[in-house]
This record gives sequence, C-alpha cells and structure tokens, in this order.
Amino acid sequence: MTGESFSEKLRRVSEGKDSLLCVGLDPDPRLMPVDDVLEFNRAIIDATRDLVCCYKPNLAFFEAMGPPGLEALRRTVEHIAGEVPVIGDAKRGDIGNTARAYASALFDYYGFDAVTANPYMGGDTLAPFLDYADRGVFVVCRTSNPGSGDFQSLPVLRANGKHGPLYVEVAARCREWNGAGNVGLVVGATYAEELQEVRAECPDMPILIPGVGTQGGDFRASVANGLDGRGGGILISASRQVLYASRGPDFADRARDAALDLRERINRCRSEASGIQG
Amino acid sequence: MTGESFSEKLRRVSEGKDSLLCVGLDPDPRLMPVDDVLEFNRAIIDATRDLVCCYKPNLAFFEAMGPPGLEALRRTVEHIAGEVPVIGDAKRGDIGNTARAYASALFDYYGFDAVTANPYMGGDTLAPFLDYADRGVFVVCRTSNPGSGDFQSLPVLRANGKHGPLYVEVAARCREWNGAGNVGLVVGATYAEELQEVRAECPDMPILIPGVGTQGGDFRASVANGLDGRGGGILISASRQVLYASRGPDFADRARDAALDLRERINRCRSEASGIQG
Repeated sequence: MTGESFSEKLRRVSEGKDSLLCVGLDPDPRLMPVDDVLEFNRAIIDATRDLVCCYKPNLAFFEAMGPPGLEALRRTVEHIAGEVPVIGDAKRGDIGNTARAYASALFDYYGFDAVTANPYMGGDTLAPFLDYADRGVFVVCRTSNPGSGDFQSLPVLRANGKHGPLYVEVAARCREWNGAGNVGLVVGATYAEELQEVRAECPDMPILIPGVGTQGGDFRASVANGLDGRGGGILISASRQVLYASRGPDFADRARDAALDLRERINRCRSEASGIQG
Repeated sequence: MTGESFSEKLRRVSEGKDSLLCVGLDPDPRLMPVDDVLEFNRAIIDATRDLVCCYKPNLAFFEAMGPPGLEALRRTVEHIAGEVPVIGDAKRGDIGNTARAYASALFDYYGFDAVTANPYMGGDTLAPFLDYADRGVFVVCRTSNPGSGDFQSLPVLRANGKHGPLYVEVAARCREWNGAGNVGLVVGATYAEELQEVRAECPDMPILIPGVGTQGGDFRASVANGLDGRGGGILISASRQVLYASRGPDFADRARDAALDLRERINRCRSEASGIQG
C-alpha cells in the first residue's frame, strides 16, 4: 500500500509511457482471428503493453460467453497485472448491498484497478465502489451514442439553483464525491464541445473518452478539449480498430501498429493543443 | 412461440396464482443457512413456486462468487424454467454492440424471461434488449435509496415542452418504446406518491416494486398506488425477508411461510384498494 490514489497511479503510468491510449478489450467471437479468448487477449496485451496507459476489458463480451468467458476475464486481468492499470468496463449501478456485491466482484474477485459505473441511481449507489479508496470509479457522464440526448442533455434545475444539462450536474456532483481522488468521468468523443464543458466543471479529474475511431468522434477536438491543465488527464479509448486491425495470423503485429499510430496521433494533437494554449 | 407478449404472460401467471409477489433471489454467503448456492436457491424455489408470479435473481450476488456463482445462476434459472417468469436483475446499460452482448448473455445464455435495465444512456441502449420481442425489459425509473433524488427527481424541461421530474420523463419515454408490450418500470416502494404519478403516466405497463419490507416502503400505499385499472400490473418484490426468514435447517419452510404471508397481505391491500376504487 503506497498511499498512491488511482488518479495519481494513472498519471504516473501515462507520463512514464508517454501515452494517453487506453486499449479496450472487447473480444467478439465473430471478429476474433483465433478461437480462444484468453489466447487472443494475451497476444493483444503482449503486443501493446508498452504503448498504453491502461486496458479496459468490456464485461459484456465476456459475459456473453457464460462462466468460461468470465474465467477468461479473470485470467486476462491476471495477465495484465503489474504496472498497467485495468479498468473493468461494467457500468454497474444499484443500491446498497447489491452495489457492495458488484464492487466486491469487480475489485476483489477480478482485481480491477478501476471500474465504470452508472450515476442514475445516485451518489449512495456509487459509494460502495468509492469506498475502495485506492481504486478508481469512472462515472458515465455524457455518452456518444445517438440516444444519449434522451436524458443526459435534458435541461435540469441543478442542485446549486442554476440551469444546465443533466450531464453537467452529474459531473459537478462527481467532483463533490471525489474526496479520495478516485473519481473519473466517461465522456464520449462525439460531442467535443460538451467535453470542454465537463473539463471546465472538473479541472482535475481523469476523463475516459471512448468513441474515437469507429464511432466517428472528432479526434483532434476531443484531445484538445479534454486535456487538463497539466497536458494529461484523458484516456482515449480504442477497441475494434486495434483488436481487429487484421483478422489474419498477423493480428497481434497489426494491433501493435494500430496502437503505435493512435498513440502518436494523440500525442501530436496534444502537442498542437499545448502550442495553442502556450 | 405463442405470440404472447411478456406482459401478457406475466398477467396470466399472476392471475392464475392469485399472486403479485416476486421473490428476489439475493444469495448472500454471510446469510445463507447452507453453503451451496444452487442447493439454497432450489430449496427456496421448491418451497415458494406456487405462491409467486415471478422470481428475480440479482446478478450482483452471483457475480461476487466468480464464474462458479454464474454457473449456479444458470442452473437456478434452469430449475425455475417453466411457468414462472424469471427476471434477471442486472440493471445493464451500454451502447450498441455492448448492449447486444449483454442482451445475448441475459436472454440467450441464461434464458431470462425479462431483465432490468438502466435508462441513463438513452433509448438506443435499451433497443437491443427490446428487440427480443417476447422478453421483458424493466427500466429503472424511480428507486428507493436515499440518493435516488440526486438525479432522478431533478426538475427537467421534458421533450414535450413541459416541466417535471426526470423519472416522469423516463416513464413517458418508456411508454413510447413499448410498441411490443415488453417494457416495464422499476419504481421503489419508498415513494408511494411518485408511484401514483408513474402509474398515471403509464396506465398499462407492469411495475416492479422493490423496497417493500427491509427497505421500509409503505406497503399499503405502494399496492394501492401501483395497481393498474385491472387490479394488477404490479410485482411486489421481496428478498431478504423471504430468503432469510430463518437461518436454521427450517429455512425453506419459513421462507414459504413468509411468502404466504406476503402474498396474503398484498392481496388484502388489493381488495381494500379495489373496494375504495369501486
């Protein structure tokens, strides 16, 4: 126990590797070039470990394979274990003792360094995750899918008496709940201006940004608008464009190429943004 | 394939058994009187099968046991399979291909008749579940925990131009998404007046009501305010007060007693409410 918070650990790894890239592990049997999910994940991890600041296994894909898929998930986390943080993308959210059971599954059983969680049910449903002070909780704030506006961007009367979109209120409350430095946010890349708004609300919190690439977000604007005052604090997450860069036997090498390219493009955008800022 | 929708099936079973009681299966190793979770669940199910209109396994408790717990979940659903519908209480919510993977896990792998889902990410994240037209989706609307007001009850400018709490907008949008008669809502028992508001918004949708009993909801008001025009349409869910009615070897018999008592109390409230209405 070093006393290092999750956010501090993430920044240390990100700076050490000069990488803001998070590789999402979404093993899809219809797309994988090998049959065995653990073999696939290990090959991807071994090919990209030095290029990423974290991995993000998506629990849905493992759950769809039944209990053997979840055993593969456990062994995948075990294979990563070490320097690179692992975010369990589970987006759980439930009350008291149920949330405690989810937190125990994700943190104790699988050993994730951080998880994603859903805010709809309120702060006390996030608390059992936040009670693990050395782990991280990325709260879903603003997502990149077409229906994300159904509720997230509705104008609300906020707790502070001001009006604003719901996702800004979510961001503001998450800042309140960040006493242990273990809260982050999930903000999709599709809405780069909203990302700027969230960053202004939460200057110091890490922001996980999925939706770059196959979901069509504006890459450059996402990086520029998401960066914190120290030129970091974002995790640009890519899954399919890395995992399935090739469907042939060279898949691991092509995944490395894709990860290298993404890391470089992100860093170039960061330099440009810093140049503009400075 | 009978063409019967989930809501129709639920009503048929509920009427046939004269029961609005849903037993939640939350197997907690610290409370279970036997070590084996499948043995425990089977005993509870065999003791209560004729008294309930559905079962609701809570995935968190199975996930906390790792893959063996999920194998026990699969076999629990298999043990129930038949007349009584089974609701997988998972509260999932994620975008496109991830939501499809969750839906496949829950409906194809485990074989649930219905699931609970989280609305925060929007209608298109519920669609992959709703595409299973013969299954049900209970969308989390208003919950009973202390922090539920953080976001659910914020005043929003609704899509129809009116103002109202967020959970009413969630209910209204769910009614729009109910083309196949397979959408329901989750409304906690703690806020009986809000339940009335939701019922007014969605006169025909089944409402799953947890929080009766150990969570302290007002029992009689929940039943009266939740009933639809046909004197049904609610599932009163109880977990711990049934599962752990006794921690001794008589646990299955005491679970049956608790379920009998609950079913009767619910039916008495229903009669009273109908009397008042009539």
